[in-house]
Amino acid sequence: MLGHTNYGEAEVRLLRVTRGSDDHDIVDLTVSVALAGAFDASYLTGDNTNILPTDTQKNTVYAFAREGTGSPETFGLRLAQHFVDSQPSIYRARLSLVERPWTRVGGHSFVRAEGGVRTAAVTYDGAHAWVVAGVADLVLLTSSGPEFTGYVTDRYTTPLPTADRVPTADRAADRVFAASVDAQWRYSISTADPARWHHMHERARRALATAFGDTSSHSPQQTLHAMGQAVLDAVPEAAEVRLSLSHKPHALVDLAPFGLDNPGAVYHAADRPYGQVEGAVLREGAPPAGLAWSIHPGV
Amino acid sequence: MLGHTNYGEAEVRLLRVTRGSDDHDIVDLTVSVALAGAFDASYLTGDNTNILPTDTQKNTVYAFAREGTGSPETFGLRLAQHFVDSQPSIYRARLSLVERPWTRVGGHSFVRAEGGVRTAAVTYDGAHAWVVAGVADLVLLTSSGPEFTGYVTDRYTTPLPTADRVPTADRAADRVFAASVDAQWRYSISTADPARWHHMHERARRALATAFGDTSSHSPQQTLHAMGQAVLDAVPEAAEVRLSLSHKPHALVDLAPFGLDNPGAVYHAADRPYGQVEGAVLREGAPPAGLAWSIHPGV
Amino acid sequence: MLGHTNYGEAEVRLLRVTRGSDDHDIVDLTVSVALAGAFDASYLTGDNTNILPTDTQKNTVYAFAREGTGSPETFGLRLAQHFVDSQPSIYRARLSLVERPWTRVGGHSFVRAEGGVRTAAVTYDGAHAWVVAGVADLVLLTSSGPEFTGYVTDRYTTPLPTADRVPTADRAADRVFAASVDAQWRYSISTADPARWHHMHERARRALATAFGDTSSHSPQQTLHAMGQAVLDAVPEAAEVRLSLSHKPHALVDLAPFGLDNPGAVYHAADRPYGQVEGAVLREGAPPAGLAWSIHPGV
Amino acid sequence: MLGHTNYGEAEVRLLRVTRGSDDHDIVDLTVSVALAGAFDASYLTGDNTNILPTDTQKNTVYAFAREGTGSPETFGLRLAQHFVDSQPSIYRARLSLVERPWTRVGGHSFVRAEGGVRTAAVTYDGAHAWVVAGVADLVLLTSSGPEFTGYVTDRYTTPLPTADRVPTADRAADRVFAASVDAQWRYSISTADPARWHHMHERARRALATAFGDTSSHSPQQTLHAMGQAVLDAVPEAAEVRLSLSHKPHALVDLAPFGLDNPGAVYHAADRPYGQVEGAVLREGAPPAGLAWSIHPGV
Repeated sequence: MLGHTNYGEAEVRLLRVTRGSDDHDIVDLTVSVALAGAFDASYLTGDNTNILPTDTQKNTVYAFAREGTGSPETFGLRLAQHFVDSQPSIYRARLSLVERPWTRVGGHSFVRAEGGVRTAAVTYDGAHAWVVAGVADLVLLTSSGPEFTGYVTDRYTTPLPTADRVPTADRAADRVFAASVDAQWRYSISTADPARWHHMHERARRALATAFGDTSSHSPQQTLHAMGQAVLDAVPEAAEVRLSLSHKPHALVDLAPFGLDNPGAVYHAADRPYGQVEGAVLREGAPPAGLAWSIHPGV
Repeated sequence: MLGHTNYGEAEVRLLRVTRGSDDHDIVDLTVSVALAGAFDASYLTGDNTNILPTDTQKNTVYAFAREGTGSPETFGLRLAQHFVDSQPSIYRARLSLVERPWTRVGGHSFVRAEGGVRTAAVTYDGAHAWVVAGVADLVLLTSSGPEFTGYVTDRYTTPLPTADRVPTADRAADRVFAASVDAQWRYSISTADPARWHHMHERARRALATAFGDTSSHSPQQTLHAMGQAVLDAVPEAAEVRLSLSHKPHALVDLAPFGLDNPGAVYHAADRPYGQVEGAVLREGAPPAGLAWSIHPGV
Repeated sequence: MLGHTNYGEAEVRLLRVTRGSDDHDIVDLTVSVALAGAFDASYLTGDNTNILPTDTQKNTVYAFAREGTGSPETFGLRLAQHFVDSQPSIYRARLSLVERPWTRVGGHSFVRAEGGVRTAAVTYDGAHAWVVAGVADLVLLTSSGPEFTGYVTDRYTTPLPTADRVPTADRAADRVFAASVDAQWRYSISTADPARWHHMHERARRALATAFGDTSSHSPQQTLHAMGQAVLDAVPEAAEVRLSLSHKPHALVDLAPFGLDNPGAVYHAADRPYGQVEGAVLREGAPPAGLAWSIHPGV
Repeated sequence: MLGHTNYGEAEVRLLRVTRGSDDHDIVDLTVSVALAGAFDASYLTGDNTNILPTDTQKNTVYAFAREGTGSPETFGLRLAQHFVDSQPSIYRARLSLVERPWTRVGGHSFVRAEGGVRTAAVTYDGAHAWVVAGVADLVLLTSSGPEFTGYVTDRYTTPLPTADRVPTADRAADRVFAASVDAQWRYSISTADPARWHHMHERARRALATAFGDTSSHSPQQTLHAMGQAVLDAVPEAAEVRLSLSHKPHALVDLAPFGLDNPGAVYHAADRPYGQVEGAVLREGAPPAGLAWSIHPGV
C-alpha cells in the first residue's frame, strides 16, 4: 500500500544578475521543487506517463529566472502555480527557496555575507497558495544571557557547568547565550509584489535579532517566545511563527587552578551536546495552517 | 498563543566499551532528547519550575549507558520511559539515536566504517511506546540503473543529459543510478530484547541494499517502492516504511570531441542539483502511526 | 630514522568578553598550537619527559586570554614566546589563529557576521618571531569578470562553457567570476601594539576586495597578481603575499531551447570541478621568509 | 616580484565503470591538477598564450579515463606526463587523486564503503616522476589506548581529564585512544603496473591499522612512530612516511555523582580541541625527496 509520495528536483542553484547602467544587482538562490499528484503508477509499475522529469523542473527554474526572480516568495509562487496549472497530473507543488546574502563592494563586485540565509516555502494546490518565510543558520549571541534558575532537580542533577559554580554578584551578567536560530513564519496574505515580501522579511528578521538580545529572559524558552511574539508584533501579516533555537554552548573556564579569577571574561566554546528549544507562537484568530508546513494534508 | 513546544538535549555522543577477557566491544551512539509537557510557564514567564535541565538529561544518558546500551531501540525505550515516568511535568519523550558503525581490526581496535548509520526514534507518552528504526546516509549505486522513458514533455523539456544522447543498443545498460538513502520503518511491536531489534534491523538493511541493486526498475520511484516492499517482506514486524532517495547525479561524459566513444564507461559525478524521491509504503492493515513519527499528536 | 616532528593542541575555541559599563565587546578565536623540539624520545621510546601535554597547552591558551587577547597576532606572539621561553625542550612554536567576525546588534548582543575569517600564524624560535596574517573563506564575486582569450588549444580543447558560446557584443560583460580567496601575507615587522595589527589587516583586506572587483583583468592569474600587488601597495609592512583563488564556477544557462535569450542574466552555480590559481607576490628586497611559512626550517 | 605560481583544475570527479559479462567493476576518483611553468605573463599582463585552460585539463582527465584508470598512481603518472610532455610551457605537473572505496552488494551494485579514502600524488618534471601514496580520514580507535605518564608539568598543568582521575588497577586499560589518520608515503620506485601499486597500498594500509591497535604505546607520538615504522617494514619500496594523527577525544564520564562506578565503560566523545601529532619516518639511506611533496623545488 502506497502512502504519501512526492518527488522533485532539489537544490537548483542560480545567480540572477541585473545589469544596470552603473551598478549590477545579484540574487543568489537555491531552489528545491517537490511535487505531489497522480504518480502511483510510477511507484508501482514504473509507468512514467504522469512524471515531469526532474531535469525539466530544473530547466523551468532557470527559464523562469530569465524574467527576474522578484523575491523568493514571488518566485516560488510563480513556479508552484506553473507546475500545478500546466500539468493535470500534478496536484500540489511545494517550492523551497534559500537566498544567500551578498554585500556590495563596488558597482559590479560583492562579498558573500554571513548572518544566516533567507528562506521561503510556497505550497500551491491549484486553488490556494500558502507562503512561509524564514531565516536559517542565523547565529546570535548575547553576553548577558538568560539566567536559569528554579528548575526541577533529580538524582541526575549536577551543578550546572563552571559558569554557575563561580560565585558572582550578578550571576546573569556572566552568562553567554548563543544559538543558531531557524525561524519560519507563515503569512495570512499573498501578494505579487516582491517589495512587500522584502519589507515584511526585513521587519521580521530585525525583530528576531532584537528580541534575542534585549529580553531580560529567565530561560531559552522565554527567549524563544519573546522572539516569536516580536515577529507577530512587527509583521501583522504573520499568523504563526515556528522557532528552533540550537544552543551554541559557552562555558566559563575555571581559571582558579592558575590563580586567576574569571568574572565573565573567558569562555570555552563547545560543539556538542547542545540544548535545543522549539516552539510555535500563533496569533489569536490565526487562519488554519492548511498546507503551509507540508505538501501533504494532515502531516 | 503558544502552539506545539518541545525542548531537550541534542547530540549527546557516547562510546560504550564492554571489556571482555579477550576482545572488547564498542557501541558509538549519538543521542538526542526531546520532551513535551507542562512547559508553558517557562515559555511565557520564564518560570522553570517544570523544566528538567538539558544538562540533567545529558547526565541521565551517560548514567543509563553504564548498564549497557543494548540496541538503540532498547536504550531509547529505557530513557523515554525514565523521563516520562519520573517527572509528572513531562508528558511525552522522543529519543532519537544514531549509531555509527565500527569494524573490528584487532581484539581492542577498530576502524570507523561507512556504509551509512543506523538510526532509531522512540516516542513514549506514559502509556504507549512507538519504535521507528532506520538507516541514513546509506549511499548505494548500481551500474545498470533504471531506464527512464515515457515521461511527460512540455516546452521546458530538453533531451536528457549526455547519458541518453549516446545511442546504445541497450540503453538501460549504461545508466548509473546512485542515491543517498534515508529509510525509516515503524514497528508494530516492542520488545526489551536487543538481539531481536538487531536482527530485524539487519534484515531490513540487507533488503534495502538488495532491492536497490536488483530491481529491473523503470524509475527511481519504482526503485523506492521496491525497497519499501522488500523491507515489509523481510521484516513482518514492520508496519510502514518511509523512504527518501537523494540522487547522486552521474552523467556519461561526451568524449566524441576527442574521437572516443563512451559506451557506459566514464561518468562525471556532480553534486547539485539532484532529484529527490520520497514515499511511504504501508502494510495492509497496519496499525495507526500514533506518535511514531512525531512527538506531537497530529503532526 | 625520524624526520620532522611536531605536536600540539588544535582548535582551542574561546570567546573573550570585555564588559564595559554600557557595551560589551567580544572576540571569537580558535587557536591551534604546534611545537617542535627535543621530542625524539617520545616518538622512539614513549619517554614523555620532554612533553608538555596538549591539555596543558589548552589551559595556557585560556589562562592567557584572561588578560585579553589584543589582536590575533599579539595573542599568538605572547603564547609562542611563553612556550619556547618557559620550556627548554621546546625549540620552536607556531600558533595558528582564526578570528570569526561578529556584528553588533545591541549593547550586549551580536550576530555572526559576513565575509570570511581573519587568520594569523606566528612562529617563534627563541630568538626571532615571524608573523603572517591573512583571510580565509572570503568569497568574492564580480559580474564583470575577466575575459579569458588567447590561450593554448590542443586536442582536448572544447569551446568554453555556455558563457562563451552565446555571442554578445561585449563578451567580458557577461562573465561572472567568483572565487573563495585564501590570502596570507608575512610582515617584515613585529609589534606589541594590537591596534597596529588591526589597522594593517583592515587595509590589506580592503585592498584584496577592491582589487578583485576593480581590475580589468584578462585572467584569474592576473586578478591574483593584482590582489597581491594591492596588498603590498596598501601595507608597506607586508613583504610577501601568498594567494589561492578557488573558482566558484558560474555558467550562463543556455535558454535558447525555451525561446529565450540570456544576455548575462541567469547563471548556474556549480560546485565542482573548479579552477584553482595560486601564487606569491614579493616586495623587491623583501627579507628572507625564515620560519614565516612553516615551523620547520627549509620546508 | 612574482614568486612560486601554479594553477589547475581541482576536484574532477569521475566514475569509471568496467562492464564484464557478469559483474561490473567501478572506480570512484577525484582528480586535481596543478601545473607550474612559463606562466608569468599570464599573472603580470593577462597574456594567456602559455595557459592550458582548466576546462581542457578536465576534458583530458575524462578522456584519459576512457582507457581505464588502472591505479590512482598510474592514472596520475599518465596525466602528469601528458601535460608536461605535450606543452612546452608546462615544466612540472602534480596530480592529486582521491579514491573512494565501494563494497560490492551484487553483480552491478555497490555500497559506499568503510575506512577512509586512498590518496596518491604524482609529480613529474619532464625527466623524473615522484610518486606518493596515502590514506586520509582513516579513523582508528583502540580501547586499550596508550597510557601517558611522566610528562612535563608547569603552572598550567591540571590533572588530566576524568579518565585519569578515576583510580583503576590498570590505568592503561581504560584509555580510549581514537584518531583520524592522514598518512602519506613516498616510493623509491615507479612502475606502470597498477597491480603492484594496489598491492603495496594494501600492505601499507594494513600495517597502519595493525600498528595503531597493537602497539603497547606510551604516547600518541610513539604510536605514530610505530605506524610509520610498520609501513617501512611492510613495503620495502616506501622510502619515507609522513603521518598526522588528529586525536578524537574520548573522556571517561564521571558517574560518581549518580552512585555509579565507571571502570572504562562510558565515554563522552568530544569534537574540539584535540591533540594533533605529526611526524616523518624515513628509511635509512632513503633517496632525496625531490618533488615528492611539492610541485615547487625547495618548498
